[in-house]
Amino acid sequence: MAISFNPPTRTLMGPGPSDVHPRILEALSRPTIGHLDPAFVGMMEECKTLLQYAFQTKNALTFPVSAPGSAGMETCFTNLIEPGDKVVVCQNGVFGGRMKENVERCGATAVMVEDAWGEVVDPQKLEDALKANPDARFVAFVHAETSTGAQSDAKTLVEIAHKHDCLTIVDAVTSLAGTPLMVDDWNIDSIYSGTQKCLGCVPGISPVSFNEAAQDVIKNRKTKVQSWFLDLNLVMGYWGDGGGGARSYHHTAPINALYALHESLVMLEEEGIENAWARHEKMHQALRAGLEAMGLSFIVKEGDRLPQLNSVTLPEGAEDAVVRKRLLEEFNLEIGAGLGALAGKVWRIGLMGSGANSKNILVCLGALESVLSDMGANINGGKALPAAMTVLSK
Amino acid sequence: MAISFNPPTRTLMGPGPSDVHPRILEALSRPTIGHLDPAFVGMMEECKTLLQYAFQTKNALTFPVSAPGSAGMETCFTNLIEPGDKVVVCQNGVFGGRMKENVERCGATAVMVEDAWGEVVDPQKLEDALKANPDARFVAFVHAETSTGAQSDAKTLVEIAHKHDCLTIVDAVTSLAGTPLMVDDWNIDSIYSGTQKCLGCVPGISPVSFNEAAQDVIKNRKTKVQSWFLDLNLVMGYWGDGGGGARSYHHTAPINALYALHESLVMLEEEGIENAWARHEKMHQALRAGLEAMGLSFIVKEGDRLPQLNSVTLPEGAEDAVVRKRLLEEFNLEIGAGLGALAGKVWRIGLMGSGANSKNILVCLGALESVLSDMGANINGGKALPAAMTVLSK
Repeated sequence: MAISFNPPTRTLMGPGPSDVHPRILEALSRPTIGHLDPAFVGMMEECKTLLQYAFQTKNALTFPVSAPGSAGMETCFTNLIEPGDKVVVCQNGVFGGRMKENVERCGATAVMVEDAWGEVVDPQKLEDALKANPDARFVAFVHAETSTGAQSDAKTLVEIAHKHDCLTIVDAVTSLAGTPLMVDDWNIDSIYSGTQKCLGCVPGISPVSFNEAAQDVIKNRKTKVQSWFLDLNLVMGYWGDGGGGARSYHHTAPINALYALHESLVMLEEEGIENAWARHEKMHQALRAGLEAMGLSFIVKEGDRLPQLNSVTLPEGAEDAVVRKRLLEEFNLEIGAGLGALAGKVWRIGLMGSGANSKNILVCLGALESVLSDMGANINGGKALPAAMTVLSK
Repeated sequence: MAISFNPPTRTLMGPGPSDVHPRILEALSRPTIGHLDPAFVGMMEECKTLLQYAFQTKNALTFPVSAPGSAGMETCFTNLIEPGDKVVVCQNGVFGGRMKENVERCGATAVMVEDAWGEVVDPQKLEDALKANPDARFVAFVHAETSTGAQSDAKTLVEIAHKHDCLTIVDAVTSLAGTPLMVDDWNIDSIYSGTQKCLGCVPGISPVSFNEAAQDVIKNRKTKVQSWFLDLNLVMGYWGDGGGGARSYHHTAPINALYALHESLVMLEEEGIENAWARHEKMHQALRAGLEAMGLSFIVKEGDRLPQLNSVTLPEGAEDAVVRKRLLEEFNLEIGAGLGALAGKVWRIGLMGSGANSKNILVCLGALESVLSDMGANINGGKALPAAMTVLSK
């Protein structure tokens, strides 16, 4: 007979999920009600308004997709793109590759603009690709590349796309609520994110937003959206157009997960999004000071780094899998492994949502130094914590 | 400023979500851990084994899709069906229509076998359709039609499909754990369900299972699955083949929702699935005795009824929306409205999961009689509760 599962209490400093605040876990466990209950519908409207705040947008079509970030990505691609379209996809890590997969599975053509992993998307390469492909209709790129920790200049990339009459599809899975992201000011046409990163919520939901231009494309499609589940023309019958009109059943919403999302957004509003951004930045500077004092180096150059995702190279003498196993088993600390081309070469240390706090930084630096010293890796002992504290006490 | 959302405590007797047991809500709120954490991976393996028990199958490819039942449906169709395929779809309610949408969005042709809403799928009509369409490759039908409460003879329908060399796609969203469902004994090839019905878990996850023949079709596709998120060839890299091998990241699993699913499956194993079926049946007989004593009639004929979904016609003098609103506001009781062609004509009263209990039956009969009497509807007063009690005390 199976028995109840009691998870260990980890400190989550990987690429997500991040630590979930007890307030959010408690909200998650409130009594389930119906997906058409007037009380629930009222909460849905609040979620939409709060998501507009998080995305810094007035887009009416802003709501959470009932599935993880990958489904949010697919919601954007599958609703906007039709067979035969040409899409310029910027790739500087894992997730640009996933965008390419999405484009091709929509029966469209992906023109790839490639930059090295760890670098940002080069605006000039995008400009060149658009000049060479005047028939491109969309530009897709990742604002915050979770596989490397590089932050591309979304505002500039969108400007270039628009100059060439392309709509934009932006991956903000790791940026939302962690680093400045201004959907309206930057004129982003469509965007998707996740709940388990800088919102500090449980995984399983994907916030999305579409401006009027993107909505026009969706409304005027020549073909049906290939996914029934993700077809926005149907989903919006349930989530509504912001006018608070009648809701009709499309699918059964993940009620409790939406309680949690709501609570995480209430907490974001309480803190103030600019304060959340500043907190992520300050914690990043403290962690960075500690890691660099220890002798580790960042793979992304200064100025291009995401505060919430710190990719550092392994010091000489450190065995990737052994270190992560010991951190988990001896300190209940999870940090992220390298993905794809960076597997075995880097660690990705997340500072996301409520996990971007001084306690986590001290735990991480202390545990990492302890394990690395013990295995004889080449690090500077005794320097990390004081260096971090200097920043934290500012 | 938005504030925390505190939902009312409802009694959920609609078509789902059903009442979620406090044990499951508590499991849901346990600390989030990583989707590649060895502790989590161990729980995933248990979930798979427990789902095999719930489905009564040994299928290695049995796991929960990270999205609601509609995405489970889409997982089956989008993985099995290729453009140009012909699929016979049996429709006797809303969900057969959704299957047709799925078939067509896969670029395939749906041959419809239609039965009246409230009736079961007629095996003879399926046989005739297959004779007329020898090139059909799949048969899709709904075991438990949530929109009407009719239970079709899945075993017979699968036999007919196989006789004509078709694989089967079965909707068991409302049947799983509520009424006998024997995936292996009945030779069902692919099946999907939901968590928020007779498992009594929170909504947002869709258990699925595929036999060897279905897996062969998926492995030997000529074209890529059109959904990256639902592509089983990729998803199984994370969920594994049952052998407990290495897991690779595909998407971030809805960790906490899976804790809840695990707990609901542990509870099912503790009760014993035959006992769960028997409990749903007994509770149905009690509710039925009460509703019929009140003078309401079932739209599905005896023998074809799902115990967990009771569709009854409105008595003379009852206004649908007013009654449901009063039940909700005065008694915190949710019952389901009619869907599609049955909107305004029937109520759907669910007895699902841990909500299939005597307390809910008394609440429902008492509240319904109170509201209907008060508005002068044509019912027999004072008879419902004694009639239900006679069955319950057996």
